[in-house]
Amino acid sequence: MSLFSFFNKKSSAPTARERLQVLLAHERSTVGHSDLVAKLREEILAVIAKHVQIDNDKVNVKMDRGEKVSTLEVDIEIPLNADVKKDVKAA
Amino acid sequence: MSLFSFFNKKSSAPTARERLQVLLAHERSTVGHSDLVAKLREEILAVIAKHVQIDNDKVNVKMDRGEKVSTLEVDIEIPLNADVKKDVKAA
Repeated sequence: MSLFSFFNKKSSAPTARERLQVLLAHERSTVGHSDLVAKLREEILAVIAKHVQIDNDKVNVKMDRGEKVSTLEVDIEIPLNADVKKDVKAA
Repeated sequence: MSLFSFFNKKSSAPTARERLQVLLAHERSTVGHSDLVAKLREEILAVIAKHVQIDNDKVNVKMDRGEKVSTLEVDIEIPLNADVKKDVKAA
């Protein structure tokens, strides 16, 4: 799936919402940190939620564990009026 | 750029290192949170560094700000012997 194909839809009208997509892929060796993607998932969502007000039912998360590659896809629709948390200090 | 094309190279030999790739794309409306990708960049790197020991010169970060879409690409090579930080509590 090419992330950019998602955004290549030419839309002349100003979009009524914004979209944030995160794609994470972890290529493991035979013996490796197998659950790194699962560990990162919650914390990456938490980082995003610190900066943008998120509506839980507009968040789509897909995880896939292949033989050598684990992937995480997060697709968040951000309504236009979602407030951006101005000066959020990094934890 | 398709993230998965990156991983589709069939390699029979066990890979001598692991790779973590993060792709972030923010489709903005005409007026929107323009620097969301820049804000998320440092914190996502910090989340990853909490879980895996990272060698700074093996981290490749690319940011691109298009008219409607900003993207962040992070490509991290994780040496096999990199220690995984066992039970790291989310902050």
